[in-house]
Amino acid sequence: MKYALITVRKIKNIKNFFPYAVLIEGENLKEKILKGFKYYNAIIFIGSIGIITRYLKLMSKSKLFDPAIVVLDEKLRYCIPLLSSHFGGALDLSLRIEKEIKSISVITTATDTQNLIGIDLFARRNNLIVDKKENIKLINSKLLNEKKISVNLPNYFELPKYYITSEKADVCYESGGKILNLIPKDLVLGIGFHKNENADYIYKKYLELIDVKFRNRIQILVSHEKKWNTKVFHEFSRKINVTHTKGYNNFELQKAIDKLNIDKENIVKKHMGISEICRPACFLASNNMEELITIKDKNIKFSIFRIQKYWKNPYLEEDIPEVIK
Amino acid sequence: MKYALITVRKIKNIKNFFPYAVLIEGENLKEKILKGFKYYNAIIFIGSIGIITRYLKLMSKSKLFDPAIVVLDEKLRYCIPLLSSHFGGALDLSLRIEKEIKSISVITTATDTQNLIGIDLFARRNNLIVDKKENIKLINSKLLNEKKISVNLPNYFELPKYYITSEKADVCYESGGKILNLIPKDLVLGIGFHKNENADYIYKKYLELIDVKFRNRIQILVSHEKKWNTKVFHEFSRKINVTHTKGYNNFELQKAIDKLNIDKENIVKKHMGISEICRPACFLASNNMEELITIKDKNIKFSIFRIQKYWKNPYLEEDIPEVIK
Repeated sequence: MKYALITVRKIKNIKNFFPYAVLIEGENLKEKILKGFKYYNAIIFIGSIGIITRYLKLMSKSKLFDPAIVVLDEKLRYCIPLLSSHFGGALDLSLRIEKEIKSISVITTATDTQNLIGIDLFARRNNLIVDKKENIKLINSKLLNEKKISVNLPNYFELPKYYITSEKADVCYESGGKILNLIPKDLVLGIGFHKNENADYIYKKYLELIDVKFRNRIQILVSHEKKWNTKVFHEFSRKINVTHTKGYNNFELQKAIDKLNIDKENIVKKHMGISEICRPACFLASNNMEELITIKDKNIKFSIFRIQKYWKNPYLEEDIPEVIK
Repeated sequence: MKYALITVRKIKNIKNFFPYAVLIEGENLKEKILKGFKYYNAIIFIGSIGIITRYLKLMSKSKLFDPAIVVLDEKLRYCIPLLSSHFGGALDLSLRIEKEIKSISVITTATDTQNLIGIDLFARRNNLIVDKKENIKLINSKLLNEKKISVNLPNYFELPKYYITSEKADVCYESGGKILNLIPKDLVLGIGFHKNENADYIYKKYLELIDVKFRNRIQILVSHEKKWNTKVFHEFSRKINVTHTKGYNNFELQKAIDKLNIDKENIVKKHMGISEICRPACFLASNNMEELITIKDKNIKFSIFRIQKYWKNPYLEEDIPEVIK
């Protein structure tokens, strides 16, 4: 996950309070916020909530795609999860900040105010997604009003208060839920693209070529480290709202190619020194040979592999390339 | 000033905490918020800040025209001034709520965080406006960085900390300020319109017919009580961002007409029972005979009078007609 730190005014040593975040520098506040929206999964904004709210008007899209945004005053007294509290992780970011630097989390969401774990927050914390987003409200209302929801989930999930296990349940795993299902984010997407392609075009092709049943489950976006080092790669990762990315070097990829036994002479090898990027990168990230799809369209290639064991911490900060700092 | 109270979920007895506000009822949250934006000067929103922020995207226009918005959680622990903190009065509304029901005001604006009174807040609290809005930042930066701004104001204003009186000052009254001037809101606008006119059209005519030097200074919007009892009247009052309105009955208006000595037989008298609305209503609100302009265009009439002594409390709640509840 990529964390951006944006301040309205210069604040001395502010970076020290958020060591996991990149301080976005520059004179123009609007450009800094735009950069945050374009490349980062979470924005820590220090300044007036009215200012960021007015910019959100221009930038926010939907609760499923917007970055998490938390707002703190300059004295770091309060931390307000403003946008994407549950799916985006703003609430948990705020709680982390509270724990680490003692800012008070100002929580306004109904379930959290009542100390209940809504189904969307439960999903986020367990790297799951919800199949029928419009029904989240139904489950959370039950939680708030009846203090009880019925679930049928694998027993390695730790159930929050008022989640009662039942065979025919409102909430099931993968399928069978009367109201909705929780789906694991258990896929890795590998991507290769020509350096002239832009993120909008790659995203368009992605929507065209990759079935929605795969798209929802993607946990990690991977490629060659040269691609990972481009703006386009990270802009695309935000468009598909993936919070983990990784780039591999030739040495790592060649080892994977050898293991997969897919080496050959081709134009990619001539340019990059290795014959293929998508499949070996997916293999490295998934630690698994289960290839679900590999598809190529002119200058763009996608592969999807199933992850053997999915990444446990959905909030893990990751390396950030210089080009988007 | 008209205060709306909007809750996401039904909360028992919530009205008791905000006796000065109208609880907007209805099943559809979006419609409730739209109503708040259309007719009210301030919205007290109880629920998730993410929800109202997403709706703001559709409704907010600019810091000079948006209503004040404060957000509280359902337990009323925190109160966040979200929009129009200074000009709109959200900050002072939040401080009032803190005082009355002990919610903690969560302040994120730089000047307020540092316990400084920005020039925009000073203006609001004294029923003044600022002539060069884009220069507010310059003054407030001086306040924050240099802990000193120079002002030249009539001596009945109580000066906040770091406001230093000087002859050639950054901030003057009416004119002469090196950076900006403060202008009193000392005019009353009287309006008459045919029942078929809509607020957009009246507003268009208002912009056409009334000079900006008058428009900025309007403190009160007045008319006949029959007009005051229409949606159109209050929608127009929001469009011109006037926070005080009043309607007068025939008895009151006739007395004013007699004092002004402007009675005559005409079509208005035939329909309404009195010969004129705008000028007598202005006279009643201003307690002054100083008429600045009266202008008529087909079905719409405007009058502007100077107020002898302007209304002291910019936050005063007012009666609200049933049609907009």
